[in-house]
Amino acid sequence: MFDPRYSVILSNVGSACSDRFMSGGYGQQLSIEEQFERAAEIDSVKGVELIANAHISSKNIELIRENLQRTQLKLVSIIPDHFGQKKWGKGAFSSKDSQIRRDAVAHTKEMIDIAKELDCDLISLWPGQDGYDYYFQADFIEERGWFEEGVKECSRYNKDIKIAIEYKPKEPRTRSFPSNVYSTLLMVNEINEPNCGVTIDFGHALVAYENVAESVAVLKKYGDRLFHIHMNDNYTFWDDDMIVASVHTIQYLEFLYWLEKTEYKGWISMDQYPYREDGKEAVSESIEWLKALNQSINRLGKDVIENLIKKGDATLTSKTLRKLLLGGV
Amino acid sequence: MFDPRYSVILSNVGSACSDRFMSGGYGQQLSIEEQFERAAEIDSVKGVELIANAHISSKNIELIRENLQRTQLKLVSIIPDHFGQKKWGKGAFSSKDSQIRRDAVAHTKEMIDIAKELDCDLISLWPGQDGYDYYFQADFIEERGWFEEGVKECSRYNKDIKIAIEYKPKEPRTRSFPSNVYSTLLMVNEINEPNCGVTIDFGHALVAYENVAESVAVLKKYGDRLFHIHMNDNYTFWDDDMIVASVHTIQYLEFLYWLEKTEYKGWISMDQYPYREDGKEAVSESIEWLKALNQSINRLGKDVIENLIKKGDATLTSKTLRKLLLGGV
Amino acid sequence: MFDPRYSVILSNVGSACSDRFMSGGYGQQLSIEEQFERAAEIDSVKGVELIANAHISSKNIELIRENLQRTQLKLVSIIPDHFGQKKWGKGAFSSKDSQIRRDAVAHTKEMIDIAKELDCDLISLWPGQDGYDYYFQADFIEERGWFEEGVKECSRYNKDIKIAIEYKPKEPRTRSFPSNVYSTLLMVNEINEPNCGVTIDFGHALVAYENVAESVAVLKKYGDRLFHIHMNDNYTFWDDDMIVASVHTIQYLEFLYWLEKTEYKGWISMDQYPYREDGKEAVSESIEWLKALNQSINRLGKDVIENLIKKGDATLTSKTLRKLLLGGV
Amino acid sequence: MFDPRYSVILSNVGSACSDRFMSGGYGQQLSIEEQFERAAEIDSVKGVELIANAHISSKNIELIRENLQRTQLKLVSIIPDHFGQKKWGKGAFSSKDSQIRRDAVAHTKEMIDIAKELDCDLISLWPGQDGYDYYFQADFIEERGWFEEGVKECSRYNKDIKIAIEYKPKEPRTRSFPSNVYSTLLMVNEINEPNCGVTIDFGHALVAYENVAESVAVLKKYGDRLFHIHMNDNYTFWDDDMIVASVHTIQYLEFLYWLEKTEYKGWISMDQYPYREDGKEAVSESIEWLKALNQSINRLGKDVIENLIKKGDATLTSKTLRKLLLGGV
Repeated sequence: MFDPRYSVILSNVGSACSDRFMSGGYGQQLSIEEQFERAAEIDSVKGVELIANAHISSKNIELIRENLQRTQLKLVSIIPDHFGQKKWGKGAFSSKDSQIRRDAVAHTKEMIDIAKELDCDLISLWPGQDGYDYYFQADFIEERGWFEEGVKECSRYNKDIKIAIEYKPKEPRTRSFPSNVYSTLLMVNEINEPNCGVTIDFGHALVAYENVAESVAVLKKYGDRLFHIHMNDNYTFWDDDMIVASVHTIQYLEFLYWLEKTEYKGWISMDQYPYREDGKEAVSESIEWLKALNQSINRLGKDVIENLIKKGDATLTSKTLRKLLLGGV
Repeated sequence: MFDPRYSVILSNVGSACSDRFMSGGYGQQLSIEEQFERAAEIDSVKGVELIANAHISSKNIELIRENLQRTQLKLVSIIPDHFGQKKWGKGAFSSKDSQIRRDAVAHTKEMIDIAKELDCDLISLWPGQDGYDYYFQADFIEERGWFEEGVKECSRYNKDIKIAIEYKPKEPRTRSFPSNVYSTLLMVNEINEPNCGVTIDFGHALVAYENVAESVAVLKKYGDRLFHIHMNDNYTFWDDDMIVASVHTIQYLEFLYWLEKTEYKGWISMDQYPYREDGKEAVSESIEWLKALNQSINRLGKDVIENLIKKGDATLTSKTLRKLLLGGV
Repeated sequence: MFDPRYSVILSNVGSACSDRFMSGGYGQQLSIEEQFERAAEIDSVKGVELIANAHISSKNIELIRENLQRTQLKLVSIIPDHFGQKKWGKGAFSSKDSQIRRDAVAHTKEMIDIAKELDCDLISLWPGQDGYDYYFQADFIEERGWFEEGVKECSRYNKDIKIAIEYKPKEPRTRSFPSNVYSTLLMVNEINEPNCGVTIDFGHALVAYENVAESVAVLKKYGDRLFHIHMNDNYTFWDDDMIVASVHTIQYLEFLYWLEKTEYKGWISMDQYPYREDGKEAVSESIEWLKALNQSINRLGKDVIENLIKKGDATLTSKTLRKLLLGGV
Repeated sequence: MFDPRYSVILSNVGSACSDRFMSGGYGQQLSIEEQFERAAEIDSVKGVELIANAHISSKNIELIRENLQRTQLKLVSIIPDHFGQKKWGKGAFSSKDSQIRRDAVAHTKEMIDIAKELDCDLISLWPGQDGYDYYFQADFIEERGWFEEGVKECSRYNKDIKIAIEYKPKEPRTRSFPSNVYSTLLMVNEINEPNCGVTIDFGHALVAYENVAESVAVLKKYGDRLFHIHMNDNYTFWDDDMIVASVHTIQYLEFLYWLEKTEYKGWISMDQYPYREDGKEAVSESIEWLKALNQSINRLGKDVIENLIKKGDATLTSKTLRKLLLGGV
């Protein structure tokens, strides 16, 4: 029976999200300590992810260590900051400026060292600025090549630390290089290091018109490369970063089933933007949905589900799912 | 307690859907009699909608009457054929050819007469070919004007028969004139006849990035113009015409709630394209989902829901919906 | 011959755009004076639009007056700030909190007074936070009603100042109330004041799957309500706010033609987010494109175009546009 | 200087397109001979593509041979029919039924033999029915595996005949297996035969939110796998199959540039659905646009373009493209 561990990106439990119109943030900023407190107060949260600069740097390692110990939360991953400093504005690993490309690698290595020091074995790499905006703006071959070289160098730096590339079709660039699960797998295959894989962000996958269960399967098929997961929901056109299951329902069931079927062993981490919500409540809701959806799928049972998939009869599957969710005949 | 009546577009219960690649159809054609039989075999189906030419014409009125009597199904609406004859290829009510515009009106009047004869009080008008494809192809002002004139003339022809315009952003044109609920309401306001209103097709509304509950509300607010409903589901990018609730779940709950709140009295009709499914099973599933979803929303109760809407607290609403669907804390 | 006047939203000429990942901004902040200088340096820019709080408030009217005089730029419109203060986070005119609704109106009236004082006759109202995010979160009827009441009160406050509502399907809310041209027209009709109309933002219209030429025509048809225009471009899925004509070309030709045909007399204002570009250059490029596109359409001539529209023959139109843009046979 | 050869899918020059609402077709059916005549009448058309069953089968090889000789058109590719026969309704290479999978391979081999006989070295494989529609309907791993096995077997059958897989995100399935350029490359890598590559359909790529120039580059980077090209245009949401450059302009320039840069040697074939147009005129227009766009890009010159790409300055690029298309400063 699939029984995943849940974690959260630390600042999700606060309510200080900003956007380009409300640049000062919708709510109030909390201290790191307060954020750790709030994360730990959510029963099912057993780990945290930290974002470089926003939460962690070489200057506050001890502070972080103390907070981890105090709250008994596991450090699940560090997300290097390749998106929030002015110097990354036109790309990090694939910047046209070779110094910036070296900086992107150096910053990642620094985070790998910090991860090791804090007993964390995963870097979740979101290269949000690697891509382009306009036609005739990028040398797609050269720049993808630079991206792959840089991440390869990071992967080889410490083979005990996994590097998981998080894909997204767009935002903040209008076109990102690791744009969907297939694009990223091609990169990972080219990098060809056992500790380099992929992070699925559920909402990013939806924007890429992926059925996220299929994304899980594809990562299994081509090299068993699913290393990490970020959860949220959206209306399929944009990364709205909403509470899990606020828009979709059945798609989560199929997703959870395929995590079990492909023997996913990693964490499931919440990655939301609760602009106008209480962050702690929003994260807690997401995990409660996932737990309840997972119980449903476990209740249905692997044999029943495999049989439905084998038959592929949409009306029979509809009937089964309907009874599972709503009871009746 | 909201307890709607369910109907079906006759050929939905068959399995002879075609598309542009499988122009001969995915399954086998059934006779009109067989289609009536199959519709009647679905317990909750109490009415049928008939499409002109495909199902009904001035030449087979007695055949239809017999089938209605035999199966005890109510004729809920007639859908004139403004989309399937070569002459409508470049538009019907808004065709650049005045003779075709007159034909579009004449065909509608003919169907109004047949409706009257068969004790049916609704024409569901889907002007699928009214719109355009290319830039610089349409005189938007003149052609929308023609559309409104034509439908106004039809509305005044028999004030006892309602005319409900069904909107859709695209397909078969890349751009349709009655493209979304707001566009259609502007037309209906201009037509300004009490018996002229709107048909919501759930999937068409999704493709227009509408929250369909809001579409229901908007039709109430601006003149109480919701006359009819077509049900199906899709992935929000195209009119996939799938089984109800195969993609969305919660959106149907809100939709059903707003139907009750706005005191919708019409039929809820299934409008699917079960290309690869058994049509009868697919329609039956859609209705079973709607009945079960409606029971859930009734179980929750109007007071609870109104309180959630008044508060607008997404986390509280999430908790309530989660328990409703999956139980637990 | 159509010969529009061009203006710009002041901060567009800077390069300090931020987004939710780069909250500190991609470039450096400029002073108000520097921004005015840069705007005035663009030859074709004859006017500016100012955003409340960001650029203008009751506290700096004299500063603004001096800058307008020094640069000889006309104040084209004031955009009240209903999106960037924490109090508007859950809505302004349609907030569930009646005090905030009153504040939204009061802030608008304050801007109307300032506009009058600075010889400006237009308020471009972008109610970015009016809408909702989640299912079961909004009372669509009541909240749209509040919106209409509030804007009506503002419209009646000073009948010499036009109020132009700018629509957008989403962002920052996942679902906005004035979501497309038709939705906004219904509101404007309900408000029913001669000085209340609509601002088209080209990119917002694209995201709403509008052909923007058609949006212009629709505003003419239903009451001559096009009061103002914001220009940019995008890939049709999101408000990327790019340089004009960086993605689309022919659509601008049809748009400009319909502005002429409907006798649009207002300003055409640039509204971009040059995150990674020099803002002044990006704005200048947009205007140069518009001027050159407008020359092309003038060269083609009204008779030729009207004839193409009357015929609606896509291949003939293609040939004409091809020769216009690329020469040849 | 890039100087590609142009071809057309035979029936494009007719006007008999149907869709699911106009199943009898918008225009009149032409004979094979008439279609060949019309294709040959378009000056720049030097080759044709034939669709199995619709145009070619083992029963009419001599007829086809005569028509090719008479019109002096080269047979550019054969497109096996894996989409238009009832038996493929639920998939061909990835069907759950092993007999149908064998049939899919057998039919392809038959077309390979015919291709050889007619001196044609390319099979353009469009597996339109390989995919699924509903959640819990497909075993993604097993079914993708079957797909790859089947195509591998076809590729090995005759190493002198290239097999080019044409991808598409959806339609006729709501979700296709070779869904985008990256997904298809993963399959091609797995198949791992030198004569197995990819067909880009311009419009399919747009629907996948690809910048098609980037798709060309990616196919170069990961194994030089671009074997064939289908041209058309659309509004980016659906495969509208419109005349080339009716919606986009600059994107074609970048696309043509990258074809040259990556030394594409294949044909460029028109693949449109001129539902309401004269097919011959619509095809002719597409090629005239491509020729004129290609001349423009050649006029600009490789050095200038490479310099723009190296700089990546969107405003400088905008200026250059503006002058290229519209003249001026």
